Amino acid sequence: MKKTVVLLSGGLDSTTTLAYAISKGYEVVPLTISYGQRHARELRSAKAVAEHYGIKQHVMTDLDLSFLTTSALTSSKVDVPKRGSLDDISEEIPVTYVPARNIIMLSIAAGLCETVGGEAIFIGANAVDYSGYPDCRPEFLKAFQHVLAVGTKAGVEGRPIRVEAPILSMSKAEIVALAKKLDAPLHLTWSCYQGGEKACGRCDSCLLRLKGFHDAGLVDPVPYEASP
Amino acid sequence: MKKTVVLLSGGLDSTTTLAYAISKGYEVVPLTISYGQRHARELRSAKAVAEHYGIKQHVMTDLDLSFLTTSALTSSKVDVPKRGSLDDISEEIPVTYVPARNIIMLSIAAGLCETVGGEAIFIGANAVDYSGYPDCRPEFLKAFQHVLAVGTKAGVEGRPIRVEAPILSMSKAEIVALAKKLDAPLHLTWSCYQGGEKACGRCDSCLLRLKGFHDAGLVDPVPYEASP
Repeated sequence: MKKTVVLLSGGLDSTTTLAYAISKGYEVVPLTISYGQRHARELRSAKAVAEHYGIKQHVMTDLDLSFLTTSALTSSKVDVPKRGSLDDISEEIPVTYVPARNIIMLSIAAGLCETVGGEAIFIGANAVDYSGYPDCRPEFLKAFQHVLAVGTKAGVEGRPIRVEAPILSMSKAEIVALAKKLDAPLHLTWSCYQGGEKACGRCDSCLLRLKGFHDAGLVDPVPYEASP
Repeated sequence: MKKTVVLLSGGLDSTTTLAYAISKGYEVVPLTISYGQRHARELRSAKAVAEHYGIKQHVMTDLDLSFLTTSALTSSKVDVPKRGSLDDISEEIPVTYVPARNIIMLSIAAGLCETVGGEAIFIGANAVDYSGYPDCRPEFLKAFQHVLAVGTKAGVEGRPIRVEAPILSMSKAEIVALAKKLDAPLHLTWSCYQGGEKACGRCDSCLLRLKGFHDAGLVDPVPYEASP
């Protein structure tokens, strides 16, 4: 059975990506990296999602990125912005940008992928609703795949690891619809940037998620602090 | 003052690279990543080297890579080979190859470099005595620099981070000679793959280092278990 490593944060996008890889016949090895993000709540979701699928090998690892002091997701000194609506989300790279985040995540996934003899890494990167993150663009993913071709044992031995981003060009509504079609456990996922017991409903991530469910004509099964 | 992040393991190569960056007028931020390698002894050296230079900000972080079970440097189940001489070192990629190691190290360095506003990452990669590691080749470093140009905020904003590998094409003897010329604290460095109090003198890393000092006409100030 062909193997793949799936980066699984426990959010909507990565869970849908996991469900997609499974639907394509892959034996999946989810990789969850705890990097000191505020929403450690996500990690519980990642575990629950992997258990839902009865996955044998779920690799969880810790990486202290608290020295990346400019990001709201790694530093408690930077506030996660709360907004009234999606209209307030600017085109600029937001404070939730973690420097080199996807580069770091994909690198660790590459190490695991070589170790388990996998042929691809699946990542739930999205270039549509991505809020300006440079490491969610197709050009970046292509460049990273080239790094794996020339910089790993698998690559130089003629078995280059592919980088697959199946939801890259989908709108949030399309992602929600795909998740529904694949019967992904959306009730177990977590997308909110805050670490509360209920989703805040006001951060970028919540606003995009809620709009996605709305546009897909579905109700988000996750509890929210206030009605959005 | 222009800033740079230097990957500092505490070995001969990274210490020489740090000394080189300082000699070029950079304010250096050393980054030492503990990835569960056997030679935790190196970390003590990294700290001592940074202190030797009176460096203010030395970032040390932990990353558990024990799931990379195929490498002798991350798994206790794979033995570090002991050899009689350098002639026994084969051309193949050795068991000390850590899957995607330099990709992971450079990625984390890239995050730190963006955070501190640095213009380059210095890495002590070496393509001459590199024992067959694919992630020490010029082609890889060039590909990785392209990833930073297209996948980071600094890159898309027109301040791409450079990857500098000043000792890439040097023989071990040339590295030792450069270190001597720059007055690098070689007595504080540690290269042995084993974690003992004295260097073993028989692993690939020790053999290459000893040959380097010998060819440079210098005596290695580090203590060895047995006379090589």
